[in-house]
Amino acid sequence: MAKQEDLFKNVVSHAKEYGFIFQSSEIYDGLSAVYDYAQNGVELKKNIRDYWWKSMVQMHENIVGIDAAIFMHPTTWKASGHVDAFNDPLIDNKDSKKRYRADVLIEDYAEKLNQKAQKEIEKARTRFGEAFDEAQFVSTNPRVVEYLSKKNEILQRMARGLESGDLADVKALIEELEIADPETGSKNWTEVRQFNLMFGTKLGASADSAMDLYLRPETAQGIFVNFLNVQKTGRMKIPFGIAQTGKAFRNEIVARQFIFRMREFEQMEMQFFVKPGEEMKYYEYWKETRLKWHLSLGLGKENYRFHDHEKLAHYANAAADIEFNFPFGFKELEGIHSRTDFDLKAHEEFSGKKLQYFDTEENKNYVPYVVETSVGLDRMFLAVFSKALQEETLEDGSTRTVLRLPSVLAPTKAAVLPLVKKDGLPEVARQIIEDLKWDFNVAYDEKDAVGRRYRRQDALGTPFCITVDHQTLEDQTVTIRHRDSMQQDRVKIEELRGIINNEVSMRNWLMKM
Amino acid sequence: MAKQEDLFKNVVSHAKEYGFIFQSSEIYDGLSAVYDYAQNGVELKKNIRDYWWKSMVQMHENIVGIDAAIFMHPTTWKASGHVDAFNDPLIDNKDSKKRYRADVLIEDYAEKLNQKAQKEIEKARTRFGEAFDEAQFVSTNPRVVEYLSKKNEILQRMARGLESGDLADVKALIEELEIADPETGSKNWTEVRQFNLMFGTKLGASADSAMDLYLRPETAQGIFVNFLNVQKTGRMKIPFGIAQTGKAFRNEIVARQFIFRMREFEQMEMQFFVKPGEEMKYYEYWKETRLKWHLSLGLGKENYRFHDHEKLAHYANAAADIEFNFPFGFKELEGIHSRTDFDLKAHEEFSGKKLQYFDTEENKNYVPYVVETSVGLDRMFLAVFSKALQEETLEDGSTRTVLRLPSVLAPTKAAVLPLVKKDGLPEVARQIIEDLKWDFNVAYDEKDAVGRRYRRQDALGTPFCITVDHQTLEDQTVTIRHRDSMQQDRVKIEELRGIINNEVSMRNWLMKM
Repeated sequence: MAKQEDLFKNVVSHAKEYGFIFQSSEIYDGLSAVYDYAQNGVELKKNIRDYWWKSMVQMHENIVGIDAAIFMHPTTWKASGHVDAFNDPLIDNKDSKKRYRADVLIEDYAEKLNQKAQKEIEKARTRFGEAFDEAQFVSTNPRVVEYLSKKNEILQRMARGLESGDLADVKALIEELEIADPETGSKNWTEVRQFNLMFGTKLGASADSAMDLYLRPETAQGIFVNFLNVQKTGRMKIPFGIAQTGKAFRNEIVARQFIFRMREFEQMEMQFFVKPGEEMKYYEYWKETRLKWHLSLGLGKENYRFHDHEKLAHYANAAADIEFNFPFGFKELEGIHSRTDFDLKAHEEFSGKKLQYFDTEENKNYVPYVVETSVGLDRMFLAVFSKALQEETLEDGSTRTVLRLPSVLAPTKAAVLPLVKKDGLPEVARQIIEDLKWDFNVAYDEKDAVGRRYRRQDALGTPFCITVDHQTLEDQTVTIRHRDSMQQDRVKIEELRGIINNEVSMRNWLMKM
Repeated sequence: MAKQEDLFKNVVSHAKEYGFIFQSSEIYDGLSAVYDYAQNGVELKKNIRDYWWKSMVQMHENIVGIDAAIFMHPTTWKASGHVDAFNDPLIDNKDSKKRYRADVLIEDYAEKLNQKAQKEIEKARTRFGEAFDEAQFVSTNPRVVEYLSKKNEILQRMARGLESGDLADVKALIEELEIADPETGSKNWTEVRQFNLMFGTKLGASADSAMDLYLRPETAQGIFVNFLNVQKTGRMKIPFGIAQTGKAFRNEIVARQFIFRMREFEQMEMQFFVKPGEEMKYYEYWKETRLKWHLSLGLGKENYRFHDHEKLAHYANAAADIEFNFPFGFKELEGIHSRTDFDLKAHEEFSGKKLQYFDTEENKNYVPYVVETSVGLDRMFLAVFSKALQEETLEDGSTRTVLRLPSVLAPTKAAVLPLVKKDGLPEVARQIIEDLKWDFNVAYDEKDAVGRRYRRQDALGTPFCITVDHQTLEDQTVTIRHRDSMQQDRVKIEELRGIINNEVSMRNWLMKM
């Protein structure tokens, strides 16, 4: 655990030091849970977005994109259920004035009971060795049984309270368990209240004539309200998909874990419209297809797993997460949801407009079912960046920090280094850049000894270093060094474009899927 | 003028009908001055953004990008002057309850005086023919002199009132001129009030602990607050630039002209940091460079002109617009501004942090000067789209609608059409798509007679149509039809990739600059 925390701290500080992510408005001491992408981060983020877009839209004849505005008509969020139900249960401590999510306080308490049970189990395992029967122990040891049944009882009572709206009982539970403010120990709590997570603003000139708007809390609704316009003007036939990337906003009370949970974030979503009854076929198809897409990046199969939802959202009849092994454990990276016809039907009801597809084969109208794939772009960034960041011990005992980004996503594809700052070597290096820059992001780097420049480019994730030396002047060859293997080859300048392209082109990476 | 209005209506309806732009939340009767980019619009917009980014960031060794959040610390907008001075003067009509910009009402009145003068001038020109001396006539004809001097007097008095904050005199001016509500004729006005154009929202959980935030009204400040972090972690040396694309928001009272002036819009900005005293050199450089970029798209040199600002914003010591010949006349497309050290100095003052660059050559610290290039992505879209949309009369007397988009920006690069839906032609067409889709956006189209499909692809702006016919089965050749010339060539399937790439690749287009 300590090691994981260190790793995560490393990720955050490397992201800042090497120009990937800065705290937002840092000169004003920052804005909580908001981050800016810096000069290398913006390129990595853009490359992830492009890789997703190309694989989802360009590669699929039956998927098109849209780019709906962040502002939508407020009735949209009535129809989607966000105005009434997109809430967190909050509680304030009257002494410390600190605010908490009531459900998180209770879950933390339940988790402590769970940990006590696990501790007993581990003690017994040590005592009994190979003869230990965990299932039997868990069901018979009185202390373990007590811890776990208490844990379940607490979580069930909380769930009942939140679902039925009995917030007084949620408060009562906190008092009965004697849960204290984690920071001050005070047990002097306010009532539990529901707090809507949408950011509100006002459109128009003055308070009396203004229209209440929300910043969209998800991009999906922009697709649903445009569904019929896209289908008709694009002559789309079911099954077909509409894809979108864009910002969404949630006024999270407890936003943490760096860019994993931010108040302003970017989604990459695709809504796939199918004939009712066929949704499970496509749900399975997209689960597999999306996992393949993640695996194509080569971060290691063992870092992904499916988590099927047992408890479903009100709009879904099946849902699964693709979880990734983040520095703080396995967490949701992407969701695949079978959303039924909930959203389109709701928009029909609230708008009074028909949102039906005319199926020429069946010769009838129907509201399609929807299968959604939804991945957080910032989470993808964190997944790729944190897994790529590695400390290596080399053969000579020294260590190097290397950012093993998938080369298709690397911000800079090659750095061109003149061995020395004289004898015409910088001029040749710049000529190589002039030739390569039309096709790739390339950098020039002449400061410090060449070994140190290699290390710097390793830390930036640059797949290739091209070094210009005195031999270059004689025979038009350079050394090309590979980031991961550190192998150096002597090649002709004219071969560089082909070598780099072969390694970094999206075409070649997508073909691995 | 009527022709221009027709042209503009055509642009709007073509944009909807062919899946480029939809009204936002149309099923809820729309949201004023907000639009969604549809399946073809999203690709055109993305291609414009990529073309800008590649030419500004990838092609310049000394320009890097960032992607700052829309949310920024609120003090940012104190420092930038937006909290105090980003206002429109509004006035309400008490009878109609309609709200107007007071300055626009007065400007419209002044414009009418101007038009009266122009009418007299035109009458005289017709009467006197070639002997007409306009300058002399304008300075001596009593009616023209009266109209024009009255116009200037009104505009000057309004400017004085707005600048000094004497809004009562602005109201008095409206009353003296007997300006009426344009919709109802009522002259029953409220006071004039200043209305801030920033959208506000609240960060955090409840009213008492919440922080007032603004949706950024411009992207530039995200660059300024990150200036030193980028410079240091990126080891940038002056002169260098930071580029950014992203959304900005303005609560415009009178938003109109389709996507020309929206409440939510996207900017493409680059701030170039230079040594104080060298700003005019770079200001001229960027004026020319940005114009060249626009001209590289081939929409016609005659459609661009510079407009140098006479009245400068409080932060600028020189400013010019690149104006474009929109369907409603020449209007601002891009601004090039010499912003001095105003913004960085203001952030130093409000944050208490030094924002200085250490110049190793001069061995001293200074706050750099800034030259900005700022283009509206949505305006670029409108410029390209409206100029590309053409009605042509063909040799046989028939007309065709063709969207002559620069092929580098076209949403779909080629459509593959089987001549008939049988004999294995659709299968061959799909095979061609399977091969081309790795590199280009390609579409399949089998419905209707081939001539009609050509017209449809013309209207979508697709540069190439590839037709598979029976001869294809024999000799692996297809016809390739060029959108603009309508010329058809018979080529081998294996040549297609090269032909398309040569026409659409960004590399080749950028080389025209």
